[in-house]
Amino acid sequence: MTRRRLSLSDYVNGVTAGDRFVLSQAITLVESRHPDDQVLASQLQQALLPASRSSFRVGITGVPGVGKSTFIESFGTHLNQRGRSLAVLTVDPSSERSGGSILGDKTRMPTLSQSALAYVRPSATGGALGGVAYKTREIILLCEAAGYEVVVVETVGVGQSETEVYQITDFFLLLMLAGAGDELQGIKKGVMELADALLITKADGDNRVAAQRAQREYQNALHLFRPPDSRVPVEVLTCSAQQKEGVEAVWEMMLNYRRRTQASGYFQQKREEQNLRWMHRLLRDYLQHRFWHYPPLVSIRTEIEQQVKAGTLTAQQGAKWLIDSYERGEKL
Amino acid sequence: MTRRRLSLSDYVNGVTAGDRFVLSQAITLVESRHPDDQVLASQLQQALLPASRSSFRVGITGVPGVGKSTFIESFGTHLNQRGRSLAVLTVDPSSERSGGSILGDKTRMPTLSQSALAYVRPSATGGALGGVAYKTREIILLCEAAGYEVVVVETVGVGQSETEVYQITDFFLLLMLAGAGDELQGIKKGVMELADALLITKADGDNRVAAQRAQREYQNALHLFRPPDSRVPVEVLTCSAQQKEGVEAVWEMMLNYRRRTQASGYFQQKREEQNLRWMHRLLRDYLQHRFWHYPPLVSIRTEIEQQVKAGTLTAQQGAKWLIDSYERGEKL
Repeated sequence: MTRRRLSLSDYVNGVTAGDRFVLSQAITLVESRHPDDQVLASQLQQALLPASRSSFRVGITGVPGVGKSTFIESFGTHLNQRGRSLAVLTVDPSSERSGGSILGDKTRMPTLSQSALAYVRPSATGGALGGVAYKTREIILLCEAAGYEVVVVETVGVGQSETEVYQITDFFLLLMLAGAGDELQGIKKGVMELADALLITKADGDNRVAAQRAQREYQNALHLFRPPDSRVPVEVLTCSAQQKEGVEAVWEMMLNYRRRTQASGYFQQKREEQNLRWMHRLLRDYLQHRFWHYPPLVSIRTEIEQQVKAGTLTAQQGAKWLIDSYERGEKL
Repeated sequence: MTRRRLSLSDYVNGVTAGDRFVLSQAITLVESRHPDDQVLASQLQQALLPASRSSFRVGITGVPGVGKSTFIESFGTHLNQRGRSLAVLTVDPSSERSGGSILGDKTRMPTLSQSALAYVRPSATGGALGGVAYKTREIILLCEAAGYEVVVVETVGVGQSETEVYQITDFFLLLMLAGAGDELQGIKKGVMELADALLITKADGDNRVAAQRAQREYQNALHLFRPPDSRVPVEVLTCSAQQKEGVEAVWEMMLNYRRRTQASGYFQQKREEQNLRWMHRLLRDYLQHRFWHYPPLVSIRTEIEQQVKAGTLTAQQGAKWLIDSYERGEKL
């Protein structure tokens, strides 16, 4: 069975009407590497811009086992019960290798997957050009055009994914386990400092006391840092999915953050900077790709990199050789 | 009076003999933007590579007023007294605007400036192409060829300078004041997590107790982070320049760090990665420079950036327009 090709107006009408089948097709189109699809995808995104209502974009990260899916399931259900729609995009850079959790999304969030007010979708990994979230930013825009009020981008802490998700969301939530010690949780350098809030999960049963202690410790540690650019203090909360506790407080905190940053203008300013930075990133990736795929460079790259690494050639000299080859190649 | 032009072999012989006059001339050559100078500078660096003994490269940062010069003066004098030579390079991105402290270096470090075993030199700011430390890395290599055993790179916490200094040194020391609270000290996001050690300065008189408390607090907070890649725990020390206390402990700690990371192979591995990353950075800067200086782009850049910022044009579409102009321009 071949997929029926939709026209640009089919896509625009379907997505803006909130048709989930068309939305899924549109995401697949955006993720496609086929040149024809890319042209259409680009037209689609531009066409959807006027229709696009802006959502609250929430990034959620934490190591495997911290309870991300369980939290998002509770969180999303909480929003749905209050009549708010939400889309969940999963960025999992490890899935390519492990065959991982992407196929299991419907099992991971059974209630959300059945909800008329929720849309759950794994995001393809980026591959060679760009990082894991390369297409995720465009997909957020599609979900917004389809009317979702909250878009959650979930990522596993691998590679650069947290930093990337931070750069495409309004609010960045770091999930942590109590008592395990960060070293065991694999929180990478700098990630804690990106967080707009910390959430200690599994704060129930024997773990409740440990969770509360962790909450105090992190709160104290955060006082040692400079206040965030948002000027909204970073809160540390606890939650228990088992006891269904804490989810409402998280949502209240997020709303408070949005209220305060919208009032101060920070919310909008951050969005504008993200837009601009994203364009610069796309340009940088394009230039690098073009450079390294130049045939004369492909053959000498490894040799020069080895010498620069070993210190037998200065970085400057190595760069000069590569640039000279590039410029000579271009004149042919 | 015109500056006598030295030949390549004059430079090589002078620098490797440790002639400070020639070293200064060589640094000026490396900093020069004149194309002829740049060609000679590049040849000089390549020629010095075999002669270059590797130093211990130490980055030191902290906000104005924390006592960087005073600490470096004591620290350097301590090394000199033990027969070790040291070079101090100052990276001050604010000096361009304020006329700042660069001219005052001899006053800032009076003992070191007079020492036969020390060489103190402000580093020119990078300007358009590359950041503040753009030339500093090359200058470290010159100081090493001149035989300095320790090279200190000092930076004021402005812009990206700490991150850049971290990327060109073996050991990164963050100086902090007790009791002031980080928010007042302006430590930027992520900088504390780059530090291989923290040093609380001015731990004397009424401030001694506060310094010791700060030491404990930071030590506790650091436990919440993942262990550093070096696998050497991050220490928090105190010092008093006034009482001449603590400087020896800092040097012992650095030596211990070097011993352990050399034994584990991390020291060498970090150097190799720094070499390679530096070359990639030079290439990236070159590509960006070339792109944005293309005449057809200069005229449309602002308009496109404004639209992308405002969200009336997607980042992808904006990038596409710029790339299309660039590629059309190239074919002319």
